[in-house]
Amino acid sequence: MNIQAAIDTLEAKGIEVDLNPASVKSKSRDFFWYSPVLKDRLDHVTADFVATPKDEGEVITILATCFAHDVPVTTRGTGTGNYGQAMPLAGGCVLHLHKMDAVKDIQPGRVVVEPGCLLKDLDAAANETGQEIRMFSSTWATATIGGFIAGGSGGVGSVHWGALRDVGNIIRLRVVTMEESPRVMEITGEDLHRVSHAYGTNGIITEIEIPLAPAYDWVGLFVAFDTFDEALHYSYDLASCDGLLLKLVTAFENPIAKAYFQRVAPHVEESDALVALMVAPHSMPGWETFTNAYNARVIYRSDDNDWPKTPGHVFEYGWNHTTLRALKVDPSITYLQIAYGTDDPVALALKMRDKLSPECLQHIEVMRMGGKVSMAGLTLVKFSTEARLDEIVAAHEAEGAMNFNPHRYTLEEGGRQAVDERQLEFKREADPKGLLNPGKMIGWHDPDWGYDKMYAWTGLQPKAAAE
Amino acid sequence: MNIQAAIDTLEAKGIEVDLNPASVKSKSRDFFWYSPVLKDRLDHVTADFVATPKDEGEVITILATCFAHDVPVTTRGTGTGNYGQAMPLAGGCVLHLHKMDAVKDIQPGRVVVEPGCLLKDLDAAANETGQEIRMFSSTWATATIGGFIAGGSGGVGSVHWGALRDVGNIIRLRVVTMEESPRVMEITGEDLHRVSHAYGTNGIITEIEIPLAPAYDWVGLFVAFDTFDEALHYSYDLASCDGLLLKLVTAFENPIAKAYFQRVAPHVEESDALVALMVAPHSMPGWETFTNAYNARVIYRSDDNDWPKTPGHVFEYGWNHTTLRALKVDPSITYLQIAYGTDDPVALALKMRDKLSPECLQHIEVMRMGGKVSMAGLTLVKFSTEARLDEIVAAHEAEGAMNFNPHRYTLEEGGRQAVDERQLEFKREADPKGLLNPGKMIGWHDPDWGYDKMYAWTGLQPKAAAE
Repeated sequence: MNIQAAIDTLEAKGIEVDLNPASVKSKSRDFFWYSPVLKDRLDHVTADFVATPKDEGEVITILATCFAHDVPVTTRGTGTGNYGQAMPLAGGCVLHLHKMDAVKDIQPGRVVVEPGCLLKDLDAAANETGQEIRMFSSTWATATIGGFIAGGSGGVGSVHWGALRDVGNIIRLRVVTMEESPRVMEITGEDLHRVSHAYGTNGIITEIEIPLAPAYDWVGLFVAFDTFDEALHYSYDLASCDGLLLKLVTAFENPIAKAYFQRVAPHVEESDALVALMVAPHSMPGWETFTNAYNARVIYRSDDNDWPKTPGHVFEYGWNHTTLRALKVDPSITYLQIAYGTDDPVALALKMRDKLSPECLQHIEVMRMGGKVSMAGLTLVKFSTEARLDEIVAAHEAEGAMNFNPHRYTLEEGGRQAVDERQLEFKREADPKGLLNPGKMIGWHDPDWGYDKMYAWTGLQPKAAAE
Repeated sequence: MNIQAAIDTLEAKGIEVDLNPASVKSKSRDFFWYSPVLKDRLDHVTADFVATPKDEGEVITILATCFAHDVPVTTRGTGTGNYGQAMPLAGGCVLHLHKMDAVKDIQPGRVVVEPGCLLKDLDAAANETGQEIRMFSSTWATATIGGFIAGGSGGVGSVHWGALRDVGNIIRLRVVTMEESPRVMEITGEDLHRVSHAYGTNGIITEIEIPLAPAYDWVGLFVAFDTFDEALHYSYDLASCDGLLLKLVTAFENPIAKAYFQRVAPHVEESDALVALMVAPHSMPGWETFTNAYNARVIYRSDDNDWPKTPGHVFEYGWNHTTLRALKVDPSITYLQIAYGTDDPVALALKMRDKLSPECLQHIEVMRMGGKVSMAGLTLVKFSTEARLDEIVAAHEAEGAMNFNPHRYTLEEGGRQAVDERQLEFKREADPKGLLNPGKMIGWHDPDWGYDKMYAWTGLQPKAAAE
């Protein structure tokens, strides 16, 4: 690794390079600190410099230069990921894509965009044609589309369109390889699985083509229930209404709303469970008809309310904004990422609630999975020790609730705890020196790893070195 | 019943009245003759006159006049129904709504329209705003929206949006009652179930508000498979892809394509099963990725083909156009309407195939039901006798496949073989004399009927009378 030689070359070629320690440190961090485990392991991590390309040509220059000098490259959008996706474990170069933010083409049903475009800016551009993106993370206002594709799994909109990696939700990715002479590849079809959600470990995405949906003035709603059981059944049944166009169905166990949602708290009791919704305006009459059959109290609707302080976007209470809001009130809160499946997700989530509440509080995102209504749990956890956290994870797995552990920084541990052969094979081809986001793919570093404990990459920057 | 007095009054009030026997006979017929049973019972049926209102005011005049003179009123759009919905069993007045065809308002996600508007004209108007109706019958080119709402159950688009009566698929209906002074009622919410799919037995729909979806240049496709088993599994799995935007998924057992689809026949073998699809253009790459994993042969795509004679709209091979095409080749063909549910519709449909093919040939429409992928069978049946047809129906019911018998002219027998109390209650209120489409609601005429045999309404026009 010859950092200085790489910097000199890049500067000579006119690439924007940031060497200021404070700003390099800040651009070396994402939202890994939602996890106390990752905070312990990664808080000291920092890159040596940040390179900011203006276009694909500069991406190629940066990758070729870092390849020549054996400098690791970790790519970031705006660093809103929670699994440490953008943490440069071995230092080196952070490739910051925020200046590659052009919306290149919008057609009926599709858009071509550069990775650094903010989700909200992409939506604004799509809105001009009466369209919007199918799904986005709750960090819509600050996150990039590239980061969402490379590090996300679904979000607001998944209740209708399923997960990000479901066939049809990404049309095409343009990817640059990390080689002596980087190649540019157009990735489509089954090959999309090689590079989507790969944390930039096996190629750098420089262009994205995704489908668009029609834009509507979604009505944001908060609905209160006397019990979480009712809230969860309501959420499942509502999402099962094929004739109602929904963008968000989120259920919160009590007392999440009272304890952590400042603007909502005056309108609910400690014992109230809450459901957050986004409903298309033309589905509101049907939604009212459906809701009238439940013991539900509509406490807020964005199109008609008298709240002195409005709560802002309802989706900024769901997905991982729930954790963020809880964290701000109680710094000991962290979370889990659970898949409750499609067989009977309501029963399974309620079983985990019975076993673990109030140490764990259920936060459920309803989404479609394989043509059925499914539930993802972004369970709030009152953190005590790592050992107890592991016990809680094990308790979920014992009941058949799949765990995508957000207290691990590798693709495999945050995923299905198995090597993704497609991603690994593509890394061999596209990153022969293993310089792209090193330490994130166990399959590359230690293919025989047993997943019996947390993986600790030996190449991780030592804590002392960063002091 | 004083027909002449009613006619005189209507003519005096400037209502368009048709008394020409040939044209009255023709406007007294729908597509009941798909069923040999209904053909036997209803072929002679004819109204005494046809009244054609230009607006809601004239509808009120006609209803008040017919009420005063005890004249039955049977409403029709263009008479494309197959359950005898628009057959005037007791003669009297046929209320022909085709001149009430205005598209009154189009907004993002919704349209207000008069009942006589053709589905295709409604779509054309919606297209001007980049929108289209969520679903339509395969008789799109000739059927009216009012007839679809009052007599239909779903269609092209139901693979995404579910059935027509699912909450959210109808927003509002404006209805005129059959009383001395007809009232105009705005029907919304749960009350929609009182009048939608009621065959005009308890009120006349004069205005409809329904949701719209974004319009796309749907790609029509025919895909061939070596076996029907593969075709059916493919259809189910494809419709389970939440990220693919589909409008039609229809599977045909062999040899339907070869035997009955003239333009398709040169491109398939006798042994080929066929799947007909409509896929949004931006879902085509994902569709190709999905389809590559199957032993599927794409024989036609509307956006790229070299067929010397193109097949026209792919949806005009599905829903009840399948039966129509088969009937034209073999007049002994009729059909069933089966619901295979959501538990394992593929297995149930294949079981019925095993039991009954080739006397019955499976024609499956994939649709969403209660948030799951479901299958409706519009099974082709080689008709021999009524007794055998009843045996075939019973064979389905014995296996748990629900039967919506299209060889019966009552709401109950064509539905769930039980009185719909909401419709009956509303008829008591809105049609106290029982003059609207008489003979179609068993609950009104004979509430204790046991459903052990075909209901034969005693008020049915005698065959001799019509000679």
